[in-house]
Amino acid sequence: MSDITKAIAQLSKLRTDMHGKDFLLTWEKSDAEIRALALVAEVLSELHRAGRPLRVFDSGLAISIFRDNSTRTRFSFASAVNALGLGLSDLDEEKSQIAHGETVRETANMISFMAEVIGIRDDMYLGEGNRYMRGVAAAVQEGFEQGVLHQRPTLVNLQCDIDHPTQSMADLVALKRHFGSLEALRGKKIAMSWAYSPSYGKPLSVPQGVIALMSRFGMDVTLANPEGYGLIPEVVELARRNSAASGGTFSVASSMEDAFRDADVVYPKSWAPYDVMGRRTPLLQRGDRGGLEALEKECLANNARFKSWECDEAKMALTRAGKALYMHCLPADISGVSCERGEVAASVFERYRLATYREASFKPFVIAAMILMARFKDTPSVLRHLAKD
Amino acid sequence: MSDITKAIAQLSKLRTDMHGKDFLLTWEKSDAEIRALALVAEVLSELHRAGRPLRVFDSGLAISIFRDNSTRTRFSFASAVNALGLGLSDLDEEKSQIAHGETVRETANMISFMAEVIGIRDDMYLGEGNRYMRGVAAAVQEGFEQGVLHQRPTLVNLQCDIDHPTQSMADLVALKRHFGSLEALRGKKIAMSWAYSPSYGKPLSVPQGVIALMSRFGMDVTLANPEGYGLIPEVVELARRNSAASGGTFSVASSMEDAFRDADVVYPKSWAPYDVMGRRTPLLQRGDRGGLEALEKECLANNARFKSWECDEAKMALTRAGKALYMHCLPADISGVSCERGEVAASVFERYRLATYREASFKPFVIAAMILMARFKDTPSVLRHLAKD
Amino acid sequence: MSDITKAIAQLSKLRTDMHGKDFLLTWEKSDAEIRALALVAEVLSELHRAGRPLRVFDSGLAISIFRDNSTRTRFSFASAVNALGLGLSDLDEEKSQIAHGETVRETANMISFMAEVIGIRDDMYLGEGNRYMRGVAAAVQEGFEQGVLHQRPTLVNLQCDIDHPTQSMADLVALKRHFGSLEALRGKKIAMSWAYSPSYGKPLSVPQGVIALMSRFGMDVTLANPEGYGLIPEVVELARRNSAASGGTFSVASSMEDAFRDADVVYPKSWAPYDVMGRRTPLLQRGDRGGLEALEKECLANNARFKSWECDEAKMALTRAGKALYMHCLPADISGVSCERGEVAASVFERYRLATYREASFKPFVIAAMILMARFKDTPSVLRHLAKD
Repeated sequence: MSDITKAIAQLSKLRTDMHGKDFLLTWEKSDAEIRALALVAEVLSELHRAGRPLRVFDSGLAISIFRDNSTRTRFSFASAVNALGLGLSDLDEEKSQIAHGETVRETANMISFMAEVIGIRDDMYLGEGNRYMRGVAAAVQEGFEQGVLHQRPTLVNLQCDIDHPTQSMADLVALKRHFGSLEALRGKKIAMSWAYSPSYGKPLSVPQGVIALMSRFGMDVTLANPEGYGLIPEVVELARRNSAASGGTFSVASSMEDAFRDADVVYPKSWAPYDVMGRRTPLLQRGDRGGLEALEKECLANNARFKSWECDEAKMALTRAGKALYMHCLPADISGVSCERGEVAASVFERYRLATYREASFKPFVIAAMILMARFKDTPSVLRHLAKD
Repeated sequence: MSDITKAIAQLSKLRTDMHGKDFLLTWEKSDAEIRALALVAEVLSELHRAGRPLRVFDSGLAISIFRDNSTRTRFSFASAVNALGLGLSDLDEEKSQIAHGETVRETANMISFMAEVIGIRDDMYLGEGNRYMRGVAAAVQEGFEQGVLHQRPTLVNLQCDIDHPTQSMADLVALKRHFGSLEALRGKKIAMSWAYSPSYGKPLSVPQGVIALMSRFGMDVTLANPEGYGLIPEVVELARRNSAASGGTFSVASSMEDAFRDADVVYPKSWAPYDVMGRRTPLLQRGDRGGLEALEKECLANNARFKSWECDEAKMALTRAGKALYMHCLPADISGVSCERGEVAASVFERYRLATYREASFKPFVIAAMILMARFKDTPSVLRHLAKD
Repeated sequence: MSDITKAIAQLSKLRTDMHGKDFLLTWEKSDAEIRALALVAEVLSELHRAGRPLRVFDSGLAISIFRDNSTRTRFSFASAVNALGLGLSDLDEEKSQIAHGETVRETANMISFMAEVIGIRDDMYLGEGNRYMRGVAAAVQEGFEQGVLHQRPTLVNLQCDIDHPTQSMADLVALKRHFGSLEALRGKKIAMSWAYSPSYGKPLSVPQGVIALMSRFGMDVTLANPEGYGLIPEVVELARRNSAASGGTFSVASSMEDAFRDADVVYPKSWAPYDVMGRRTPLLQRGDRGGLEALEKECLANNARFKSWECDEAKMALTRAGKALYMHCLPADISGVSCERGEVAASVFERYRLATYREASFKPFVIAAMILMARFKDTPSVLRHLAKD
């Protein structure tokens, strides 16, 4: 328990202002807050490993809204809220009366009468997901101020079109553990690279979240993607500014090979072309199925030109001593396993398979940490209480 | 907390016999029981506002059966049972083996081995919903008496074809708060009016629940609807008798305008024509899709004759000082917002929007109160315990 | 409570080694363990009847994976885990990213970060269900050993292609209660007979579970089925060996009448022909809908030759004094009730209906007992604690 005691002591020294605040984008949080969040997640994980209960609520609801399929984030959220003592209620929009024309602000209040936290995944439409979350946040804020809600629930972004903060924070904790400290990340090269996938339309939020967060810790961040597969320009710009401010570097490469050269960490992952994501939104909004199918065909045909963007043994050999840490948010498209040709060669994935599972294992604790810091004023004292014999 | 203490003292003086009893229709409960239920709901709401936990169960299950879509009642039920400490298990009839020919009495027992409460929504078929609930009630009663179940779960009607008691009770609490007391409702005019909606087949249970309940408190209840849109005659008769007994009045108007004149409260809401509801049941029972589609067309065409039944500014101006309280169970069909032409003008709805949210906010506490009074013999002492520092 | 005290004392004398072990097949457990499990289930049931809370967990998740429809097992599992204090999270494979090509070992870890128990139903494919469970078990074992999981969740078989241990154990407890003790089962004749059903493809696991378990208690077990409706030969062989070892008998009859003669217990239930189940697996695996439909037609036509295999009054009259105990795992295909012609005559079923409900009522407590014995080292002391005033 002495590591836990040390971590809580470190935490006490960080100035944070997360009580009562939503967690929508990592870049809306200060460096101290990001560091604090990582510490809280680690402490919760260690307490759980030691078999200590993490219950801090007597009752209360957590609401989840998944507007896209999910396994690991769904279970990470369920795990986190259960551990803290909250009940989980999922808003299944198909079973609700939302089709009858409810507005977001009405639904947001109707589901929140006893809610402590609302977790939302809405990652399919560029320009929509994060906006929807802010709409929900404004609605519950109004409801709280106007006496509809007795408490203002906290929003947690479980992946939107811009960021995937529970993922990037879990990745950060995994890197901290791998290299020993956040300070040790300084000067380490991370390659966030597009990779080929036979499937269509994966969100941009994971690569955006990774470059925007890792650039804050003095890492040398390289982003690589085929032409037309760029990310939201404002987020790339943000990563560039973060790197400059943190004493790291930010560069863009035009091949996976260039990005991987001497990298300490590689994160090869597929995503949809930016302009396709942009064209998809209006098609989806007006329900143009024919247009969407045509766009998908075009997109897959375009993807197929970049089948060589696979994280294979040859490319891994280019990394520092051939031993870069391979990261992935899972599930990966593994060549010869989950598809004929995909993001990563089977032999590479298998070598790092358990490392990616451990990377994922931090997500429930990151979510629990986000909730804890939003709902309790004095997180260190809550943790001290949980750690006490 | 002095209001809470006062309310509990008032409660102690009311003679109620709700322990071990289902809540299926408000008119099966005495006036004292309705008053007590409103008090318990208010106390629970105030305790929650003060941040006090409402947990009274250590473990135990609440079962929900939704045979129609629902958002707010689903979340109100989930919120109520979570707050009291129960786990929630939803019977999803599509995922069950019910299609294999299970009888109601068998299923009712199979889901109830550890159930404290069963909440049911079954509002689509006239003559069926309430009957189904009584079938479930009889089945668990037999199961309990015959040693199948260790305890007899309580049934809560989450909307049937006849009544919607969690809604009408939430409405009553909202009215009590708005006017200051139940006594202050005496002589106040409430207009329960049909309103136009482009959608088909809304249940009759809300207007029926409202006229049957508000007529017990000396209000002047006016029911208005186009020809052919009457309610179940027995319920209208009941409201008439209630009014006579409580010193109020009950009248029927043939236009929204007539109903609204000098009203203190208006409740404009669409529902399906009574005879259509009656003809729908046998069609649904024999799965006659063609017949149902034809009936829907006929019904929508008929509805369209009454587009002027919209709660607009001109009609609101007819109410007492033009300032009647607008009520709705939500979601409302708002003209120009959720449909081209609907139940209520956008400007009217917007003015009362937060009031309707607050009206809805009492529903979780009404449900919690129903469960509490059914499962605990001495509700005042349970509340005193929850209120204690 | 003196019965409870006595049962706990009996339990303390039994040598068991179930802590940390999965429950996949009854025949992987020793006789002492089966006896202990029955005792624990009975104690939990009696404590619940006495209104005592069974909560032993402060928080923690139970995961359910239902790859086939289920009502009673789903609610039994939900009831058991709720009573013990666990939250329930269902893996809905349609809402997950499993379609994206996740492997079993990855998914198993991703859902298990805070899981105490995983309950799985996978009974549709001969040769697949139990294998899938072992795949999940191996995956979480690896995850635990490799630092992905902080604890190794326990697997509970909620019905596979080979066994249905929560059902057969509930049946055993029902028989123990009916005859007074496990010792009283010695020499009692149980007829596990195939019965006609108009529905296709019921799993073999119930009859297999019943003959494999009841043959361990000195019962005279008779299995009866039409030609072509045999069970997995290895399981029949196991039942035969069990009978020899326990001092009972095992025989195969070729008619329901022969099986029922002088029986103390009858268990008439439909199942799919063994060879059809075998042919179904590859058709399902390659998604051959046409082949499956043709096979179903063939199977139903074949079934129809055996409509006389109905548990009717005439056959019941052949049993000991005409009064054998009728058992069924439910739902039964009742002639004239749930189908035109089925497994059992309506008059017979009605006479034993409540007995079958009581039989089912032990299932939640059997599941709770499995979890308790797997997660706690010293079950008697846990029970003593729950029983204490």
